[in-house]
Amino acid sequence: MLAFLASPSDESLRPRRVADIVVIVKGGSVYDGLVDLTDKTPSITKWELMDGVQPILQAVEHVCRTDPGVIEQCRLSGIPPEDMHKVYCDPWTIGYDERHGSKVRLQQALMYYRPDVDTCQYQYPLDFCPIYDADKEAIVAIDIPKTRRPLSKAQPIDYTPKAVEAAGGYRTNLKPINITQPEGVSFSLRGRELEWQNWKFHIGFNYREGIVLNNISFNDQGTVRPIFYRLSLAEMVVPYGNPEHPHQRKHAFDLGEYGAGYMTNSLSLGCDCKGSIHYLDADFPARDGTTRTIKNAICIHEEDAGILFKHSDFRDDSVIVTRARRLVVQQIFTAANYEYAVQWIFHQDGTVQPEIRLTGILNTYALNHDEDAGPWGTCVYPGVNAHNHQHLFCLRVNPMIDGPNNTVNMVDTVPSDEPVGSPANFYGNAFYAKKTKLDTAAKAKTDYNGATSRTWEMVNEASIHPYSKKPASYKLVSREVPGLLPKEGSLVWKRAGFARHAVHVTKYKDDELWPAGRHVPQTSGEPSRGLPEWIGDGSESTANTDIVLWHTFGLTHIPAPEDFPVMPAEPITLLLRPRNFFRNNPVLDVPPSYAITPSQVAGKSEGVYDATDKMSKLAFANGTSETNGNGCCGSAK
Amino acid sequence: MLAFLASPSDESLRPRRVADIVVIVKGGSVYDGLVDLTDKTPSITKWELMDGVQPILQAVEHVCRTDPGVIEQCRLSGIPPEDMHKVYCDPWTIGYDERHGSKVRLQQALMYYRPDVDTCQYQYPLDFCPIYDADKEAIVAIDIPKTRRPLSKAQPIDYTPKAVEAAGGYRTNLKPINITQPEGVSFSLRGRELEWQNWKFHIGFNYREGIVLNNISFNDQGTVRPIFYRLSLAEMVVPYGNPEHPHQRKHAFDLGEYGAGYMTNSLSLGCDCKGSIHYLDADFPARDGTTRTIKNAICIHEEDAGILFKHSDFRDDSVIVTRARRLVVQQIFTAANYEYAVQWIFHQDGTVQPEIRLTGILNTYALNHDEDAGPWGTCVYPGVNAHNHQHLFCLRVNPMIDGPNNTVNMVDTVPSDEPVGSPANFYGNAFYAKKTKLDTAAKAKTDYNGATSRTWEMVNEASIHPYSKKPASYKLVSREVPGLLPKEGSLVWKRAGFARHAVHVTKYKDDELWPAGRHVPQTSGEPSRGLPEWIGDGSESTANTDIVLWHTFGLTHIPAPEDFPVMPAEPITLLLRPRNFFRNNPVLDVPPSYAITPSQVAGKSEGVYDATDKMSKLAFANGTSETNGNGCCGSAK
Repeated sequence: MLAFLASPSDESLRPRRVADIVVIVKGGSVYDGLVDLTDKTPSITKWELMDGVQPILQAVEHVCRTDPGVIEQCRLSGIPPEDMHKVYCDPWTIGYDERHGSKVRLQQALMYYRPDVDTCQYQYPLDFCPIYDADKEAIVAIDIPKTRRPLSKAQPIDYTPKAVEAAGGYRTNLKPINITQPEGVSFSLRGRELEWQNWKFHIGFNYREGIVLNNISFNDQGTVRPIFYRLSLAEMVVPYGNPEHPHQRKHAFDLGEYGAGYMTNSLSLGCDCKGSIHYLDADFPARDGTTRTIKNAICIHEEDAGILFKHSDFRDDSVIVTRARRLVVQQIFTAANYEYAVQWIFHQDGTVQPEIRLTGILNTYALNHDEDAGPWGTCVYPGVNAHNHQHLFCLRVNPMIDGPNNTVNMVDTVPSDEPVGSPANFYGNAFYAKKTKLDTAAKAKTDYNGATSRTWEMVNEASIHPYSKKPASYKLVSREVPGLLPKEGSLVWKRAGFARHAVHVTKYKDDELWPAGRHVPQTSGEPSRGLPEWIGDGSESTANTDIVLWHTFGLTHIPAPEDFPVMPAEPITLLLRPRNFFRNNPVLDVPPSYAITPSQVAGKSEGVYDATDKMSKLAFANGTSETNGNGCCGSAK
Repeated sequence: MLAFLASPSDESLRPRRVADIVVIVKGGSVYDGLVDLTDKTPSITKWELMDGVQPILQAVEHVCRTDPGVIEQCRLSGIPPEDMHKVYCDPWTIGYDERHGSKVRLQQALMYYRPDVDTCQYQYPLDFCPIYDADKEAIVAIDIPKTRRPLSKAQPIDYTPKAVEAAGGYRTNLKPINITQPEGVSFSLRGRELEWQNWKFHIGFNYREGIVLNNISFNDQGTVRPIFYRLSLAEMVVPYGNPEHPHQRKHAFDLGEYGAGYMTNSLSLGCDCKGSIHYLDADFPARDGTTRTIKNAICIHEEDAGILFKHSDFRDDSVIVTRARRLVVQQIFTAANYEYAVQWIFHQDGTVQPEIRLTGILNTYALNHDEDAGPWGTCVYPGVNAHNHQHLFCLRVNPMIDGPNNTVNMVDTVPSDEPVGSPANFYGNAFYAKKTKLDTAAKAKTDYNGATSRTWEMVNEASIHPYSKKPASYKLVSREVPGLLPKEGSLVWKRAGFARHAVHVTKYKDDELWPAGRHVPQTSGEPSRGLPEWIGDGSESTANTDIVLWHTFGLTHIPAPEDFPVMPAEPITLLLRPRNFFRNNPVLDVPPSYAITPSQVAGKSEGVYDATDKMSKLAFANGTSETNGNGCCGSAK
C-alpha cells in the first residue's frame, strides 16, 4: 500500500481488492474467508472454520412477544397477554455467560414496556431477562431476579413535542443564529480524499469502526509530510457497575459486538449540523448480495473556532488578532439507548482532536418504590434505576511521523531530583519533562498519571528539529482517562484487555485492527483476545519501527436525574498535537482580522491590516445605552 | 447584602457604598483604608499603616534606557549606546529576592531588543536583569549571569503582515463564515444584570480579578434557585522551571501583582468576537481622581453549541434532535508577553464552564549558539530559550446551592472493596462513587486523582432530590490539574500557598477574596499569605455553612518551536455541573430542530415537529456528484 501511495499512477503497484467475509451457517458454524475480487472471476484465498467464536450481531423483539415464558413473566410484572405488543426488548449480545459458553449464538433481551407507542420505553424497564438462541430462533432461558420488581406505575415523562406541550410548552425566547458561507466552503474532495488548510486525508468507513481516516498528511510549506497512516475509533466497552446477576453481562463492546458503522445515523442538514455541509454515504453488502446504503452517514463542515492567536504590546498598543477555523468530520451512531457523536476535528495549527459527544438515553433497570438504588445506581425517576457505568473508548493510532519508523515516549513533567537549597536547585523551582522510551510492548503498557500531566509522544528519532534538536513528534494529550473499574481478574477485565491500560504500543501487523479481537461476542476472556494475545510476553521491540498506539480513554458515569429522560450531550475530547514538528508556528500565514504595528500606531507607516468581519453587529441597536451599570464586585454580605 | 438582594426595593437594607483605598506614600509607606461614600461627606472608616507590604504594580522602560549601568551592559551585549531606544524591558515585580526584602518597592526589568520598531522584541532577549526601585525611581542593581549571552544575530521571524508577505504571503483559500442573528440576541441586560435561558446574574469587574459574576441563579420552572453567590478567577501564578539565578524570581502572580482588570484589552467587534455582541466598559479611578475607562472590556454573545441532545429508536426510526446554545462572557488580558482570554460560558442545561485560552508570546531568555537549552527550557528559535513553566489559575467559588449553607464532598469512583468471586462482587464488576465529606478546612486540602476521575461536589444537605434522595449539588469537573512542580519548601511553594492543593475549602469571610493575600508583590512566603494563614490549623468547620471553594487548575508548558513567535491558542476548561439539582433534564423545553414519534413514522398521527435550520446549505452545489469514492478502509500495507 505504501508503495502504491508513493506512486499512485503505477497500476502494477495497486493492491489487490479483497473482500473480508464472515459466514454463519445454520447450526452455528462460523467461517472466516477472504475473496480476491481483483480479477473477473473472484477467487477464495482463505476459508477457515472458526471454533467457538460469535461474529457481530444482527434482532429478536418479535420472538419475545410470542414466547410463552416471556408472556408469563410479563403477566407477573403486571402486563396482560393482550398488551404484549407494548413489550419491547433491546437485543444485546449476551456478553459472556459461563452457563452457556461460546458455541451457541446467544442474545440477552433487555425488556421494556411502552404504555403508549409514543412513550419512551426506557422509563418502564422490566425486571427479567430472556435469552435468545439465534440458531434456534427461540428463547432458551429467562433470568429471573430474586427480588421481583413489577411494572412501574409512575406517570410517563417524555421528550416528545406532545409531552412538552402538555407540560407547559416550548420556550420561545431563543432567537435564531444563522451560519452561512456565501462564497462556499474552504475544503475540497476528490473521491474520498479531502484537502483543507494544508491537511490531506482519505475518509474511509466500515461496518465496524465507522469513520476511518487514512494517509493523513500536512503540506508544510511545500513539503507533504506524512503524520498518520490510519486513525480510527477501534473498540469500546461500557461496563456497568451493579454486581447483581445478570447485570455483570451488561458490558457492551459497541464496535466489536454491533458495529459503529452498521449503527450509524443518516444525518440531516440543519439538524445534526448547521452551516455549509457536505455528506458522504456509507455502503454495506446486504445478506442477499445487494448494497445497503446509509445516506449521509458522514457530515463534513467548517466552524469558526474563536481566536487562533492574539498579541498586544502594552507599551505601544500594537496588536494582531487572527481567528481560527476548524474542520469537523462527524458520524453519529445509536447503540440501542445511547448515541455517540464522533467528531474528528482538524485544526489549522496541525492539531487533530478526536471528540465524542455522548447523548441519548440511560440504560435503565426496574426499581421498587421503597428500594434504595445506591451505591451501584441512582433512582433517576420513580421506578427507574440507572446503573453506574463507564464508557471506555479505544483510539487506534498508526503514526507515520515523517515516515513509518516511529517510537513512543511517555512524558511526565516532574520536579528536579535535587533538593531545595542544593546548588543545582537552590530555590526549588526546577522542573522538566522526563521522557521514558517505550521500546517494547511490555514496557509500553502504561497508565495515566494526572499529577505529572502525563502525555505520550510519537516521535521520529531520525527527524530532528533544527532549533530544538528534539525529534519531530505528535503528542497525545488526553485528560479523561479513568482506570477500568471492574477489578483485575473480573469478567470485564478478562474480556476487555485493551482497557487495562491507558496506552499500549504494538508493532504494526496487517490483521491487528481491533483490540478486543476480530470476533467479540461471547468471548470468555480466557484467553483474553486482541491486544493481550498480540502482545504476548511483550518482548517485541516497539522502537524505531512501524508501530500502533492504542489509547483507552473515556468517562465514568454516575447517573443523575438531570440525565433523564434523555441526556444533555456530554463531550469528551483529546488532542494529537505537533511538537517539535514544524519549524515554527505553522499558522502565521492565516490572514488576521486586524493587525497594526508599532510604527503604524505611531502614524509613521502605512498598511494597517483590517479584515474585520463586517457581518458582526452590536447586540442592541442602541449600543451601550441599554446598560447603565457599574463595576461593583459585591463581596461583603 | 443577602438581605438587600432578597428585598431590593427596601432602601433601608441597601449596603453602604465603601471605597477600598491603597495609598503609597513617597518614602515607601503603604496605607490601607476604607472610605464610606454613602453620605454626601465621605468618611474614612479605616486607616492602617501596613508594614513590609507592596501593593499591585504600576512602569520603568525609560529609566533603563538612560541608566549608565544598563547602557554598559547593553554595550557588552553588542548594542551601541546610540541604539538604547531599541532596548525594551518588561517590568515585573521582583517576586521576592531575599537580598532586597519586602520594605523597598522593587521591579525586575526583563530586557529585550528590537532591531526595528516593528520587530517583536521577545526574539532578542538580553541576558542581564536590572532592578528598579520605585521610590527612588532608579536602577539600584543589575543581575549579571556568569555565562554571558550576547545579542542574537539571528534573522527576525515576525508575525506582522509585512513579514508574512515577505515570507510568501497569506493563504487565500479561506472562505468566510458569517454568523448572524437577524432577529437579535436571546439575552437581555438591566444595568449589569443579565438574563438568558433561565440564568440570571450580575456582571461585576474590578482591577484585580477582572470579571466577577455575582448572585447567579437559575429559574427552575418558576422557582428562582440560587447557585453561586460569587464566581471569579481570583489569582494565578506562573512559575518558571529554570533553577539558575535570577530566574527563580520569574513566578508572576498576574492578578495579585498586576491586576487582570487593569491589564484588560479593549475588544473589537468582528475580531475578538464574531456574531451579535454586546460590550461592557470597565472604569477605574485614576491617580488624579478622574476615571480611567477601558471601552469594551467585556464582550457577551451567544454561540450555537452543537447537539444539545439526540435520540433515535432503532426499531421504529423515531428521532429527536435538539441543538444547543451557549452564552459567553469574555475578557482578554495581556500580561506583558502572554494573553489570557477568560470565558465564562453558560449552558442551557445548568452547566457553567470557565474556560481560559492562552495565547500571546512565550517569555524568552538568551541562548548562546552552541548552548543546550535542556532540560529546563527549549530552543524555540536560534538564540531563544523558552523556559519550562506552569500556568496555575485559582478559581474562587462561593456556592449558594439552594441557600448559603453548603458542604463539599470529594468524590472518587472506585471498585467495590469486595474481591472477585465473593458473593457481593462475584463477577468483579461492582463500582461506585465514594464520597468523603470535607468538613474542616484541614481535611479539605485535597489533590487531584486522575485514576479515580476525582471530582468535588458542592451540596446543600438540606435540599434532597425527590427521586434520587441525594442532596442538590454542583459538581466541579476539572481534568487539567497538574501539581505545583516547584518543590515543598521552595520560594514559589511558600509564596503561592493556594497552589499546593487542587482544592481548598474555607468558611466564608468578607475580606478573604484573594488566595495569595491582599498585597502580593514581594511577599517572602514566610509566613505564607492568603489561604494558608486563613486556614491556620484547619480546625474550622466547613460543613453545612457559608463556604468558599478554591480550585487551582492549569497546565504545564514545555515550550516547542510551534509556540513561536506567537502561540496558537491553547484552551483549558472545566465544568460546574448540576447533579441531583434539577428534577430531571432541564432542557426538554428547548425547541427541537426535528422530532418525529413512532406513531408519526407509521403515519398514524399528525404533528411532526420540523424546525430544521433553513439557512444551512449543502457545501457543493452539485450535491454528492463531486464525490465518487468508496468506503475502503485500507489496512494492509
